[in-house]
Amino acid sequence: MVFVESLQKYNLHYPANVALVCSMYEERINVMAAAWHTQLSHDPPLYGVSISPKRLTHDLILSSKEFTVNFIRYDQSRLAAFVGKTSGRDIDKLNVFEINLTNARKVKVPVLGDCYAAYECKLVDFRRTGDHTFFIGQIVGVHYDPNAFGQILTVQPTLYLGSDHYVTVDFSTKRVHDEKQVKDYLSRWVQGG
Amino acid sequence: MVFVESLQKYNLHYPANVALVCSMYEERINVMAAAWHTQLSHDPPLYGVSISPKRLTHDLILSSKEFTVNFIRYDQSRLAAFVGKTSGRDIDKLNVFEINLTNARKVKVPVLGDCYAAYECKLVDFRRTGDHTFFIGQIVGVHYDPNAFGQILTVQPTLYLGSDHYVTVDFSTKRVHDEKQVKDYLSRWVQGG
Repeated sequence: MVFVESLQKYNLHYPANVALVCSMYEERINVMAAAWHTQLSHDPPLYGVSISPKRLTHDLILSSKEFTVNFIRYDQSRLAAFVGKTSGRDIDKLNVFEINLTNARKVKVPVLGDCYAAYECKLVDFRRTGDHTFFIGQIVGVHYDPNAFGQILTVQPTLYLGSDHYVTVDFSTKRVHDEKQVKDYLSRWVQGG
Repeated sequence: MVFVESLQKYNLHYPANVALVCSMYEERINVMAAAWHTQLSHDPPLYGVSISPKRLTHDLILSSKEFTVNFIRYDQSRLAAFVGKTSGRDIDKLNVFEINLTNARKVKVPVLGDCYAAYECKLVDFRRTGDHTFFIGQIVGVHYDPNAFGQILTVQPTLYLGSDHYVTVDFSTKRVHDEKQVKDYLSRWVQGG
């Protein structure tokens, strides 16, 4: 193992599923790509997204107190880079990249028409964390393509690897590690096996 | 698309790379699995992990103000479930699951000896977010297996899909979407092409 005190880019924790964050204030709608996001709580269901203050999305969320988090298939991976590498301050991404939107139910901000899942979020808190702002939203609505999920995801997601690289999963490698497997191990361990 | 106001389990945003969080206070060391974690800032480099107050890790981090975040290969996926489905309050996971540790450099908490990458973190902030606590650490040291990275990750990571399911990536699907590709699209669009 190599040790370093710091890195130019902290890509070691990737892959991360790409989230397309949609925001709207008054008539202005924008979509950006985020690789820094995570669920935060089961009850209430909270979801966090880290966004640079340089982004138009940042100001739109602060103004409207709402956002949606959308997940796209791997055949749409180009869109992640398109909305990730351009700014809504410069171009109207919806028009340029021909992004279809659908009305959300519990917030005014739309969801992507062609995503496999989306969370509608109402901003409950935010705080500056270094050079980004961490937005914490309560999930108040959920959209999903029923063909994209069985018990778990069944369509290829768009995963970000860092440095402009993307990849998707190989479902043939899927494994289940359940309670029984853990208990079996523990009872063998107790028996010294 | 189906709309629902809420879900029993919010599994739609998975997969997520599994992070094994190591914590230590005085002589007590613990390892748990976290699927809820994200980078938060480039400069300073901040990393956030969401942990339930029920977890021993929660109390150890609050006491020591340090933790490490470790990433494991898919051939180690069973370990994610083992340390994820058991509590350090009940068993000594290091002993039971035969986890090797290595000294960190900038924190007292160790890193996993057999991981492909690890971030050493000093706690800079934390806050209660719903039923979890969100710990924000500054990355003060980085360990990585040089054979696991080229420009990006090259070994199979352990991704969590929710509901005890795991999967890994298919590197043969890797794509690059760079600045040039976006610029090419934009210039075709301007030309109406």
